[in-house]
Amino acid sequence: MQSDIEELEAKGKAAKAASRTLAHLPTHVKNNALLAIADSLAAREQEVLDANRLDYEAAQAGGMDEAMLDRLMLSSSRLQAIASDVRTVAALPDPIGEAFDTRTLPNGMRIERRRVPMGVIGAIYESRPNVTVDISCLCLKSGNAVVLRGGKESIHSNSALARVIKDAIREAGVPGDAVQFIESTERELVGHMLKMNNVIDLIIPRGGEGLVGFVVENATMPVLASGVGICHTYVDKEAELDAAVAIAFNAKVQRPTVCNALDCLLVHSAVAERYLPLIAAEWSRAGVEMHCDERALRILSSFSPVPATDSDWGKEFLSLVAAVKVVDSLDEALDHIDRYSSKHSEAIVTEDYTAAMRFLEEVDASCVYVNASTRFTDGGQFGLGAEVGISTNKFHARGPMGLRELTTYKWVIMGSGQVRP
Amino acid sequence: MQSDIEELEAKGKAAKAASRTLAHLPTHVKNNALLAIADSLAAREQEVLDANRLDYEAAQAGGMDEAMLDRLMLSSSRLQAIASDVRTVAALPDPIGEAFDTRTLPNGMRIERRRVPMGVIGAIYESRPNVTVDISCLCLKSGNAVVLRGGKESIHSNSALARVIKDAIREAGVPGDAVQFIESTERELVGHMLKMNNVIDLIIPRGGEGLVGFVVENATMPVLASGVGICHTYVDKEAELDAAVAIAFNAKVQRPTVCNALDCLLVHSAVAERYLPLIAAEWSRAGVEMHCDERALRILSSFSPVPATDSDWGKEFLSLVAAVKVVDSLDEALDHIDRYSSKHSEAIVTEDYTAAMRFLEEVDASCVYVNASTRFTDGGQFGLGAEVGISTNKFHARGPMGLRELTTYKWVIMGSGQVRP
Repeated sequence: MQSDIEELEAKGKAAKAASRTLAHLPTHVKNNALLAIADSLAAREQEVLDANRLDYEAAQAGGMDEAMLDRLMLSSSRLQAIASDVRTVAALPDPIGEAFDTRTLPNGMRIERRRVPMGVIGAIYESRPNVTVDISCLCLKSGNAVVLRGGKESIHSNSALARVIKDAIREAGVPGDAVQFIESTERELVGHMLKMNNVIDLIIPRGGEGLVGFVVENATMPVLASGVGICHTYVDKEAELDAAVAIAFNAKVQRPTVCNALDCLLVHSAVAERYLPLIAAEWSRAGVEMHCDERALRILSSFSPVPATDSDWGKEFLSLVAAVKVVDSLDEALDHIDRYSSKHSEAIVTEDYTAAMRFLEEVDASCVYVNASTRFTDGGQFGLGAEVGISTNKFHARGPMGLRELTTYKWVIMGSGQVRP
Repeated sequence: MQSDIEELEAKGKAAKAASRTLAHLPTHVKNNALLAIADSLAAREQEVLDANRLDYEAAQAGGMDEAMLDRLMLSSSRLQAIASDVRTVAALPDPIGEAFDTRTLPNGMRIERRRVPMGVIGAIYESRPNVTVDISCLCLKSGNAVVLRGGKESIHSNSALARVIKDAIREAGVPGDAVQFIESTERELVGHMLKMNNVIDLIIPRGGEGLVGFVVENATMPVLASGVGICHTYVDKEAELDAAVAIAFNAKVQRPTVCNALDCLLVHSAVAERYLPLIAAEWSRAGVEMHCDERALRILSSFSPVPATDSDWGKEFLSLVAAVKVVDSLDEALDHIDRYSSKHSEAIVTEDYTAAMRFLEEVDASCVYVNASTRFTDGGQFGLGAEVGISTNKFHARGPMGLRELTTYKWVIMGSGQVRP
């Protein structure tokens, strides 16, 4: 254990040292390194797949379930997909060096904010080995060094991928120390890593609620965490009902296992009798189970609805289940959302201008929609290129986080001898 | 104590409820409330001064030292100055509602980031009663509710000021609950407040290192803290020496007790023999004590310099003391700064273009300067209008923080029926 801690600390220091170089690497050097990683993933495919087989067989022998095994498994085509994502990151604009709020002060000093990397980013993640490549490439592109701590189940895969990455970037002229992979899988190392705020500027947890919660609770440095999504769609009395059916259907059914899927449908009482049977017919065909309040229950009696319990409001279902509630006003909808939302993504469907504007203004969430599906809350869909996660916090970054959210800025002041009077 | 906690929690909830209204108050309503506060500070001057007298007499009887007593004391002219600062905040642009990164996506959805308040800001501060007004007004202008926890020594003053503020804003049409003042001075309440991340979105500590450290260590919500400033000025071999004298003199002497004052002067060996006697002559006249490395010691022997000890490097002096060191290259200066800087404000004096560009690029600090005094690191000087503090963190805000740093943003998506394919 002592030697593991020493390894961790040495790697943290090495990453810090590398981050000084990384911070001012020209864009083409970073991009060439990313393309070299993509090429190496193809050229060294067998080495990675052999390592992955070791993990897979151990996990299988240990009784890991099929879904988890599937997440763990790499294949030639999966490696090609990972390499293709790396090329996409290489093609994105470099966030570093952007100047903003530039101006000349009355005393002649030129002042600007200049976008710079955070420094060293720590990543703590679970079984999917693609995260090793994914996070490394996002960090490299944004000029950050990275310390990777993967899960025990994918240790051989992660180690092989990290080796490929380090070799590739080194040949492309980027310090190999920019990417550090912790070889030990001792559990206690995570706790130690979370206290290393002298070298790690930001930590990214990737995994289940347990892992994310532990990191948020124990980290001494800022945490970039993705939050749960308890998402509402409110069908207003002035909604165009066909659009409202298409939107609620898409928000619930297109991919029910993700954070931006619909959890609760709120419907104005003036349109509930007409609207609810329309959406219920579509949802029923797709196998959606509806947990309804009393009024919705009555309207939808022919669709075998389930009576909602208190725990259905403010619940993230991550499956083909939706809570359904009839409200008597926009204000009642706003109050319900204010009480139960996890501040992720919230939508109104309406043709009423003032209702739309009020909803956008008054709902406190990372993403607020009029007449569109909440499923669009995604870095790629929003045009951020690559997504680091979706924040439901208010500090630093909110909603989909891209490369820019892995950066900070410094004030640059160019003077000609100015002193303060 | 139990009733104090109940009071605190009730006030937190009331602030949260008020924050929903506050978030979308029109600018003129907020500004009128600020002007009403300024007017009330004049109209109810006697009430505030009477309360302040209670605090002052108790502090005096308790043996408080002169400097602290002076901070605690209010007077007619001090209240006028505070009111004048409030009017300045009223005149600043409203940060709320600003849209940025606005664009139309290929599917026709219009998307933007819209600046919104944080919600509820907690403030924990020590003896200066002006902070009650100062923080309340910055929060109001940025659409945030505030929960104030002042020091025991100024409890009567703070309570009176909070009463004046609440009455004034209520008459101006802003919910009085937007400003909450904790009347109890129980020490344990601070710890409890720091766990209230369900209602407080951001906490601002104002006071000594002890208070700030306690808040950073124990808060469960983000902290907007001002850091210490260990500031270097590097006089390069290509420096214009007269400018270098003026800049280093200003940075050390103009106000030595503040965070952006010079702590360490680095001088290139090629100009040390000429430059050091020039700045030493000026500094000596101003009473600056120089803690010199061996080479500087030899050059400045006629100025009775003090030999530097290891603890002089990386020390914030906050007084008329400067550490002085001779270096042989820009790289040595960069290494020294990297090792000892608190990442606040760092300056180079040079006419060499490449040295200037390298310094701006490679020094990791909130504010990096070429040919100007580090004393300019200040929200007012940078044109931010009002200053919330100076951050030496990298997350959310860096360097001088103004009203904008008390805000976050939400993504606003205006669709016309879009669903995700």
